[in-house]
Amino acid sequence: MANAQRSRYSIAVDTMGGDRGAAEVVRGVALALKEFKDIDEIILVGPKRMLEQMLKKVDLNKDRRLTIHHASQVVEMSEKPIQALKQKKDSSLVRSIELVKEGRAGAVVSLGNTGALMAGATLKLRPVKGIERPALATVIPSHKHHFLLIDAGANPETTGLQLAHNAILGNIYYKSILPNKNPRIGLLTIGSEEGKGTERIATAHEHLKKISHKINYIGPIEGFDTFKNVADVVVTDGFTGNCVLKSLESCFTTLSGFLKKELGATPFRQLGAVLSKGAFTAMKDQLSPEHYSGAPLLGINGLVLKTHGSSNRKFIRSAIRIANEGLRDDLTKKIQKGIAEGNAIVEESEAPAKA
Amino acid sequence: MANAQRSRYSIAVDTMGGDRGAAEVVRGVALALKEFKDIDEIILVGPKRMLEQMLKKVDLNKDRRLTIHHASQVVEMSEKPIQALKQKKDSSLVRSIELVKEGRAGAVVSLGNTGALMAGATLKLRPVKGIERPALATVIPSHKHHFLLIDAGANPETTGLQLAHNAILGNIYYKSILPNKNPRIGLLTIGSEEGKGTERIATAHEHLKKISHKINYIGPIEGFDTFKNVADVVVTDGFTGNCVLKSLESCFTTLSGFLKKELGATPFRQLGAVLSKGAFTAMKDQLSPEHYSGAPLLGINGLVLKTHGSSNRKFIRSAIRIANEGLRDDLTKKIQKGIAEGNAIVEESEAPAKA
Repeated sequence: MANAQRSRYSIAVDTMGGDRGAAEVVRGVALALKEFKDIDEIILVGPKRMLEQMLKKVDLNKDRRLTIHHASQVVEMSEKPIQALKQKKDSSLVRSIELVKEGRAGAVVSLGNTGALMAGATLKLRPVKGIERPALATVIPSHKHHFLLIDAGANPETTGLQLAHNAILGNIYYKSILPNKNPRIGLLTIGSEEGKGTERIATAHEHLKKISHKINYIGPIEGFDTFKNVADVVVTDGFTGNCVLKSLESCFTTLSGFLKKELGATPFRQLGAVLSKGAFTAMKDQLSPEHYSGAPLLGINGLVLKTHGSSNRKFIRSAIRIANEGLRDDLTKKIQKGIAEGNAIVEESEAPAKA
Repeated sequence: MANAQRSRYSIAVDTMGGDRGAAEVVRGVALALKEFKDIDEIILVGPKRMLEQMLKKVDLNKDRRLTIHHASQVVEMSEKPIQALKQKKDSSLVRSIELVKEGRAGAVVSLGNTGALMAGATLKLRPVKGIERPALATVIPSHKHHFLLIDAGANPETTGLQLAHNAILGNIYYKSILPNKNPRIGLLTIGSEEGKGTERIATAHEHLKKISHKINYIGPIEGFDTFKNVADVVVTDGFTGNCVLKSLESCFTTLSGFLKKELGATPFRQLGAVLSKGAFTAMKDQLSPEHYSGAPLLGINGLVLKTHGSSNRKFIRSAIRIANEGLRDDLTKKIQKGIAEGNAIVEESEAPAKA
């Protein structure tokens, strides 16, 4: 295979910074390589000697699709992003992003410090032409229906135009990873009346109506609608999106724990729980974020996926799969094209376009 | 009892606009009168003749604590708030608010159009001196620990100073209804580092630090923390609060339905569900919003409680209880005092105070 081709589809995996250590990341990589034969190359970024030893343990030290790229430092979860980027130039996180910048890789998968990853990727890879701020997209699993939330926290102070860009980004990404070629795009607000909410919502709504021949914009939606299979892509600002996402996680974790405790409280209930175990397993399977772990930072020149710091090997495998599919699907090019088209329509109707 | 005293503690109940009709509201009133002997007077606001007949049915037509105040119109759920207020001056919603304005009642309980209730109450009763916008406070039930979310949707574009006011309002209300005299106040943001989030969060944080000898301000919290018993009062803007609250409701409803369906899917599971029924009942009891139904619009001159349009008699009873306790506790006076004190501290440190 030509080297250029190989670089374009190569995935840099930041092996450091996850809660379970680099060994778990390496095991996730092993799963991915075994399962997805069309992966060209995975570049493990981290301390060379340590990684070599880990590869030996999983019998991957001679896999031709694996390369190690040495990095001596680790950005810790608790570090301040900008400071960490400045002080840890030889960290696995910074080196991984640089591999994409240099054209040595097409994508990064990282479990590390979210703020540092987003800031580093934005500064080094730069936003796509026509976009001011990238957005984090995350799949929220639900009953029968998963939906995409964008922005989950990259850009807390989003303008109306930036919200419209989030819609374009979400539309393209959704089509790339979920089997629905015309996802319904809803704009999250309070009260579904047209024009209700804030000024930026009204501006975003106007923009989205203009590009509704390009995307399937269904209009404003309320929080009530999120889990109701009304919209496939829920568009919001990074502040609201982050608060909604994390509150949902917090609620789910607390209530699952509560139910578990209550089910174990008496022998009767314990027996009941055993008999109805299938129901809980079915729910767990359906609601596990495993299959769509890896939230991409969309709208930059390159594919950067953040997976949860606590991700196990299965989550890491899924993130690598999504990165690989995104590269095969030319996600970044599609985004560049989609944004250019969207901006042209908005600018045509009002010169100059203001959010 | 002196008439003035009676008016001060009187509760106007808007009988129209709920999904279950006025008869259910009347039954809720009957429950409240039976259970809470210290209620002085409930003024039922709605069509006089209809209400008289309903009272006969529940044997309340001779209860001396009941008065009917005639109103011929109904504000529907779907109506635009400002338009409805202008066009339906003889609606039960408008008349109920006017009873407080005229000093004939101390509080309003309504199941009707939230937007119209908030706009009407704000315009007619006016915000408390020193406050620009009122905030909607709602209790979110959780495992072992309920927390108060403020603002749940009244003021979508909240400034830093307004967020600090929400904290003061939430603190006073929490102490009035929940058995904790020093509630922990958290400021909802993305990332718990100091200064992270948006500019208004940074401003609110500075204000709150200054008044932290008056309230138990624990600092910024993330969505992850909401259900973790970290804070008793979660302070946020009306846009984020509304999106978080309604997404949680949407998630809970969808997943409860999912679990129910899965538990009924096979005879084994059905049997299991019967055996472990106690666990589900315990959860339902703990998580029911029944005991704290009624979200007050805090920061106006008067006590206005909104309860869910679908509230049944038990929810209505609880809302009346909360209204009665709020009146007995002199909630509005406490709020006036708390805001004046808070503003004085903020203004002292920076003249003039800007949000």
